[in-house]
Amino acid sequence: MNALDLNQDTIVAVSTPHGMGGIAVVRVSGPDALTFVEKRWQGASLKTMASHTVHLGKIMDSQGELLDEVVLTLYRGPHSFTGEDVVEIACHGSLWIQRQLVTTLIDAGCRAATGGEFTQRAFVNGKMDLSQAEAIADVIASSSRAAHRVAMNQMRGAFGRELSALRSQLLQFVSLIELELDFSEEDVNFADRSRLIDLATSIQGVISRLSHSFEAGNVIKNGLPVAIVGASNAGKSTLLNALLRDDRALVSDIAGTTRDVIEDTMVLGGVQFRFIDTAGIRESTDVIENMGIERSFQKMDEAQIVLWVIDATTGMGEVERLAATIAQRCASKQLIAVVNKTDVADAGPIVQALQQLMPEGIAVMAMSAKNLSDVERLEGLIVERAMLPEVDSEALIVTNARHYEALLRAGDAIERSIDGLRAGLSGDLVSQDIRECMHYLGEITGEISTDDILGEIFAHFCIGK
Amino acid sequence: MNALDLNQDTIVAVSTPHGMGGIAVVRVSGPDALTFVEKRWQGASLKTMASHTVHLGKIMDSQGELLDEVVLTLYRGPHSFTGEDVVEIACHGSLWIQRQLVTTLIDAGCRAATGGEFTQRAFVNGKMDLSQAEAIADVIASSSRAAHRVAMNQMRGAFGRELSALRSQLLQFVSLIELELDFSEEDVNFADRSRLIDLATSIQGVISRLSHSFEAGNVIKNGLPVAIVGASNAGKSTLLNALLRDDRALVSDIAGTTRDVIEDTMVLGGVQFRFIDTAGIRESTDVIENMGIERSFQKMDEAQIVLWVIDATTGMGEVERLAATIAQRCASKQLIAVVNKTDVADAGPIVQALQQLMPEGIAVMAMSAKNLSDVERLEGLIVERAMLPEVDSEALIVTNARHYEALLRAGDAIERSIDGLRAGLSGDLVSQDIRECMHYLGEITGEISTDDILGEIFAHFCIGK
Repeated sequence: MNALDLNQDTIVAVSTPHGMGGIAVVRVSGPDALTFVEKRWQGASLKTMASHTVHLGKIMDSQGELLDEVVLTLYRGPHSFTGEDVVEIACHGSLWIQRQLVTTLIDAGCRAATGGEFTQRAFVNGKMDLSQAEAIADVIASSSRAAHRVAMNQMRGAFGRELSALRSQLLQFVSLIELELDFSEEDVNFADRSRLIDLATSIQGVISRLSHSFEAGNVIKNGLPVAIVGASNAGKSTLLNALLRDDRALVSDIAGTTRDVIEDTMVLGGVQFRFIDTAGIRESTDVIENMGIERSFQKMDEAQIVLWVIDATTGMGEVERLAATIAQRCASKQLIAVVNKTDVADAGPIVQALQQLMPEGIAVMAMSAKNLSDVERLEGLIVERAMLPEVDSEALIVTNARHYEALLRAGDAIERSIDGLRAGLSGDLVSQDIRECMHYLGEITGEISTDDILGEIFAHFCIGK
Repeated sequence: MNALDLNQDTIVAVSTPHGMGGIAVVRVSGPDALTFVEKRWQGASLKTMASHTVHLGKIMDSQGELLDEVVLTLYRGPHSFTGEDVVEIACHGSLWIQRQLVTTLIDAGCRAATGGEFTQRAFVNGKMDLSQAEAIADVIASSSRAAHRVAMNQMRGAFGRELSALRSQLLQFVSLIELELDFSEEDVNFADRSRLIDLATSIQGVISRLSHSFEAGNVIKNGLPVAIVGASNAGKSTLLNALLRDDRALVSDIAGTTRDVIEDTMVLGGVQFRFIDTAGIRESTDVIENMGIERSFQKMDEAQIVLWVIDATTGMGEVERLAATIAQRCASKQLIAVVNKTDVADAGPIVQALQQLMPEGIAVMAMSAKNLSDVERLEGLIVERAMLPEVDSEALIVTNARHYEALLRAGDAIERSIDGLRAGLSGDLVSQDIRECMHYLGEITGEISTDDILGEIFAHFCIGK
């Protein structure tokens, strides 16, 4: 689908969440929005309505029978979300009415919108840059204050403005070099190489700061990774269920996320955590078993916090052997040792042994996941140990993998240009690297874009946005 | 809660379906709607906005931080759904934003709305009668054309107008009788008794027509009842699943309905069917087993259509014995005999035997529910055999059990008044019956209502409507 062809059609979709409710909103956008809606509308004439006004009226179905009494809002382009003429129809929220309303508007000439197509039009019509358009999907998917704040910031254009500033610096840079080239035969030296190196280094610094923020951004967007490790009978799943107990409703709310994410993500103390379940580990001489253990340890490596779950009935010898391995593997992580099953055994001896065995700074606690005793204490420890990225309301944080990759490539290109300048490479070679850097930054905001990129991005949006 | 106290609070709720989507709408209604929203709003001043206009702006949270960029619509009372000042805020459809938006408006002074409270206010403020208010819930729950049409009709006030006409006839009637009473000592006879009997009989006719429409209304609203009977291994569940196969998505859509209804309701050829599953039946001399069979037959009695499922591997003797019993029990019903499991046995002999054995007009067919073969043929037969109540767009059909009960009582009262007139009872006794009839009709439209009735009715609405 060619981006420029998009605007020829007038599109329609339900924009409110899927389901039955008090009201639902059907959105129509495109050059014929007024004409097509008018065919089904009984009320004040759309042609004479002022923009940004609402009107009570009736929508008739394709057979001319009354479908619903609705409230219609008119936005005349370019003063609308998409930049085109937009009509929003608030109908009664029955699924039947919603379907019939979309169907009858399709009969009247509209086409069913694809996912994200309204936002895509807003981008194509210059209402926002691509990073802002992408941020809308993130705003809608946000489920914690921090994720919301980062996405809102990006949606409001802060990231795009920073990148535009970088690109104009780069443009100035490349102009100087290319001017030098034009006059190269006259042996004029417009660009002071050491000044150029300083400029490129400062640009590299900004790109590097942005790409480094992705780690924090990923934690904010997808949750701070917590691994639960321990022997297979230690009660890892019970512990996870105990932690998730209050959060079930919230978690199952989030439609469109994968089942894995639904089951393993929760918000504690305003922070989103992502739980990584691992296979059981224990000391073993068996090769196959050791491979399983190695996989558990690899999973553990992704985590920032590790919950080591120990069955209170485990023999002291096994606990001691594992303690050494775990402490070593978790040296750079926050480790919480949880002695579980206080409902069936006294956890005291293992707790004491671990407090002596484990390096300082490692939390040791006892609980019963089954009886939900001391779950709050564990939650408190997890929140306390979480190393949260600082997010103030002005922070620019990259949360999007596409942006991160483009930033890495832009960083590589600017680094090559610095190397080139230092090595005394000719201006045309250096200029090529700078232009490549600009290209990657431009991909983020959509100043450089291909239909493939656009298609990929907007395919992940929900219909109606 | 006293109805008159309701209007003191300003209420807030999400009005769009629950979940994540492109946009969501939060509705605020009440005397302080403008003041409370203004506290969280950055944009054009609400005080100076014209009614029925939309405005882009920002909503800040209780800490003064940006929560979302929104579109705000203002409706000044009484020109709004509730008759009060109403502000509707269309925000991005993240669950987090929806929750925070409601929370911050509660912090600003609003109260969370209870289910149906916006509609209840519309009723209390005289924007609609009670039968119209109730019809809104039916419109939202409608899942077929017929159910939608009946509910829309009622929502638009047709039922209320018919009842009002009846009540004014009754009022005229009672006035004549009571006038007679006032002048009774003068022996004047204002009311010709036989004319009064004619009037009462015509009113009784209308009430009776309305209350009889409830059977049709119930079919339209809850589905035409179809019983599936047969031996326990005949494949009744497989058959039901085969019928429901294409409809799963539609069926599971309907939030707020009970699990039973979700599993057993489907729309075929625009008509809603409600499947009644029954225990297995077979000829038996066992007392306990016979009790089970009797229960199956009772369930069958509720149905308008009976699907008798027969395993193609069943012995001919058993089929013949059951055929007689079933044909007898289903004399007043549409019976379809389905010889199932053509994938494992030849259904030919049983089909031929049944065609000879069963009374004329009974459909006999063979299929494999497991392989989904001939499911469309069965669907066609079901639709063909369905005796659909005629619903033209002007039809007045009672679908609400509360209305039905009130109509039955009104019918009883008018019948007593006719008996009284015929028996020459004194005017004050007759007048009492007529006033009782008026009372019950008034309960339907809410001209007569108690807080208990209102509370019961609106408790079944979804929040936000």
